[in-house]
Amino acid sequence: LTLDEILERHRPTIERTLRESFAGRALGFYAPMRYHLGWEEADGRPSQRGSGKGLRPALCLLACEAAGGDPARALPAAAALELLHNFSLIHDDIQDGDRERRGRATVWTIWGVPQGINTGDGMIALSYLSLLRAGHSSPPAVVGRVAQTFAAAQLKICEGQYLDISFEDRLDVTSTDYLEMIGLKTAALLSGAAEIGALLAGAEHVAAFRAYGQNLGLAFQITDDVLGIWGDPTVTGKPAANDIRRRKKSFPVVYALEQSHAAGDGRMAAIYAAPDMEEAAVAEVLAILEERRARSHAHAIAERFHHAALTELAPLPQNEGKRLLIELSTALVEREY
Amino acid sequence: LTLDEILERHRPTIERTLRESFAGRALGFYAPMRYHLGWEEADGRPSQRGSGKGLRPALCLLACEAAGGDPARALPAAAALELLHNFSLIHDDIQDGDRERRGRATVWTIWGVPQGINTGDGMIALSYLSLLRAGHSSPPAVVGRVAQTFAAAQLKICEGQYLDISFEDRLDVTSTDYLEMIGLKTAALLSGAAEIGALLAGAEHVAAFRAYGQNLGLAFQITDDVLGIWGDPTVTGKPAANDIRRRKKSFPVVYALEQSHAAGDGRMAAIYAAPDMEEAAVAEVLAILEERRARSHAHAIAERFHHAALTELAPLPQNEGKRLLIELSTALVEREY
Repeated sequence: LTLDEILERHRPTIERTLRESFAGRALGFYAPMRYHLGWEEADGRPSQRGSGKGLRPALCLLACEAAGGDPARALPAAAALELLHNFSLIHDDIQDGDRERRGRATVWTIWGVPQGINTGDGMIALSYLSLLRAGHSSPPAVVGRVAQTFAAAQLKICEGQYLDISFEDRLDVTSTDYLEMIGLKTAALLSGAAEIGALLAGAEHVAAFRAYGQNLGLAFQITDDVLGIWGDPTVTGKPAANDIRRRKKSFPVVYALEQSHAAGDGRMAAIYAAPDMEEAAVAEVLAILEERRARSHAHAIAERFHHAALTELAPLPQNEGKRLLIELSTALVEREY
Repeated sequence: LTLDEILERHRPTIERTLRESFAGRALGFYAPMRYHLGWEEADGRPSQRGSGKGLRPALCLLACEAAGGDPARALPAAAALELLHNFSLIHDDIQDGDRERRGRATVWTIWGVPQGINTGDGMIALSYLSLLRAGHSSPPAVVGRVAQTFAAAQLKICEGQYLDISFEDRLDVTSTDYLEMIGLKTAALLSGAAEIGALLAGAEHVAAFRAYGQNLGLAFQITDDVLGIWGDPTVTGKPAANDIRRRKKSFPVVYALEQSHAAGDGRMAAIYAAPDMEEAAVAEVLAILEERRARSHAHAIAERFHHAALTELAPLPQNEGKRLLIELSTALVEREY
C-alpha cells in the first residue's frame, strides 16, 4: 500500500469530524483557521485544497483499530490531534518567518503576526474541545488519561520547538541533540496519537503503541529531512536542495557538520556560519554531504527507527489495524514526497 | 476587607501548587516562564517579585468554598487558571509590542519573539497538565466538565483577543462592541474560574457561579479601564493618563468616542486617527472625557455589573466562601490599583 492509500482510508470521516469543530463558529476569528486548513481562500470563498496528509489522525484511528477498538470512538481525538498539529504549523511559520506553506501565503502574512499568534492559540483551545468530545463515547476515566497524554505531547512539542529555535544560532549541534529535538518536536505527537488511539480502544497497556509512535515519528522526520534535500522536485513540489538553501539544520546537515568537525574539516561550518547561502555554497554543501555519506547514514537511521517501530508491534495480536500500522511505517520511510 | 486581604488568604497554597507544575522541569525552555511568573531574574537568579494579583485562582478557591467544597480540591485547577492567564499575558505583550510589564522587560524583549510565542504555548500545555491533576481528588466525570469549561474559556479569551486586535484600526467601536469584547477576553476566564471552583465542590448547578464570575469580570475590567486613565500614579505604579498616552481604546474612550460621534463632535476621533499622541492631545482627550462624563458613566456601569454579580449570589446558602465572594466583588470595584 502507498502512503496515500493508507491515509485515504479514514480521511472522509476525519475531515467531517474536523469540520464539526467549526460548526456554528461564525466570528471572523475562525476565518484564518479555515484558510489554513485549506477549506477557504483568504477572502472566505470555499476552497478544495484540503489540509495536509492527516498522518496524526490516521495513526490514532489505526492504533484504536489495532488495539481492538471501534475507530469511530477515536474520531474526536483524531481531529484534536490534527488541530494541535496545525496550531504548531501556524506558530512555526511565524517563528521561522516563512511566507509560504503548501504553495499558499501563510496565515501571518495575510492577517499579520498578532492575529496569526492568536489564530494558533485558538486552534489549541479548539483541539481540547474536540478531544473532550471523546467523553460522549468513552468512560470519563479513559478520557482523563487521553487528555493527560494529549497535554503532555503538547508540552513536548513546545520543548522540542525551544530546542529547534535555539539550534539556529549553533554550529555544534550533535546528532544526539538533533534526535532529542525531533523526539520532542515531531515524534511526541505521533507517539501520543498512537497511545490515545489505543486508550480509546479501552486498552490498559499502551506502552507498545506509545513506543511504536515514537519510533515511527523519528523515522518519519528523518525521511522528511532526506526528502527536503534530495527529494524529486516534481514529486515533492519543492525546489531541489530546498532545505540546504533555507539553511535548515536537518539531520543530514547536523550529521555532516558533526563528521566534518571530527575530521578537522571546517568548510561546511564556514558556510553555515554565513548569514546567506549562495548557489555555489549550496552545491558545495551537497558535495560535502555526499563525501560524508550523510544521505545513506540518514537512510540507515530512519530504517533503524522503522524496524524498532515494527518490533514494538510484534507481540500484539494480528488484525487489520496492526497490518495497516506496519504498512504505515513502511510507507513513511519509503515515500518520495 | 481590602482586595489584598482577600487575595492573601489562599496565596501561599496557590503559589506552592503553581511551583509544583515546574518541579523537575530543568530545560532552558522553562526559564522564561519562571521569569515571567516573577520567580527568577532573566539570568536565572531567584527573584522575590512574585507574580500578579492571583485573582483567578483566588476566585476559583473561594467559589469552591462557597459551593460547600474543600478548596484544597480546587488547587490544581486554580494554578491552571493562573497559568492560562499568564500565557495570555505573554502573547498579549508580543501582540501589542509592549516592552515592559510590572516594571520589568517582557519575555519577548529578552528571549525574542519566536521563543516568546513558544513560552506562551508551553504555558498553555502546563496549564492543562495542572488542571488534569484535579483528577487525583475529584471524580473523572467532574474533571471532564471542568476541562470542558476551561477549554471553552480559553477559546473565548482568543475570540476576545481577536476582537480587541481588530478594534485597533477602528474608530466606530460602540460600547456594546466593547462589552462583548471584554466579556470574552477578560470575563470568560473569571466566569470559568468561579464555575470550575463550584464544579470541584461537587455542585451540580453552577449557573449562578458562572454568571457571578462573568459580571464580576466585566466590573473588574471597566474598573481597570478607569484606573488606567485616572488611577493615582503613586498607587498604581503607572504614569497618569497612561492608557490615553498608549492610545488604548478602553471603555471610557470608546464611550466618549461614541458620544462625540452622536453629537457630531469629531475632535476625539481626529486625535485617535493620528498615529501618535502628543502631550497636548492627551490633555485634550482628558478634557473631552470630562465633558462627556465618561468617568462617571464607566463607574456607573461597573457598579451595575457589580450588583448583578451580587444578585447571582443572593440565593446561595450563607457561608464564609460566599461572604468572601461578595467582599471580593466589592473590593474589585472600589480598589485604587
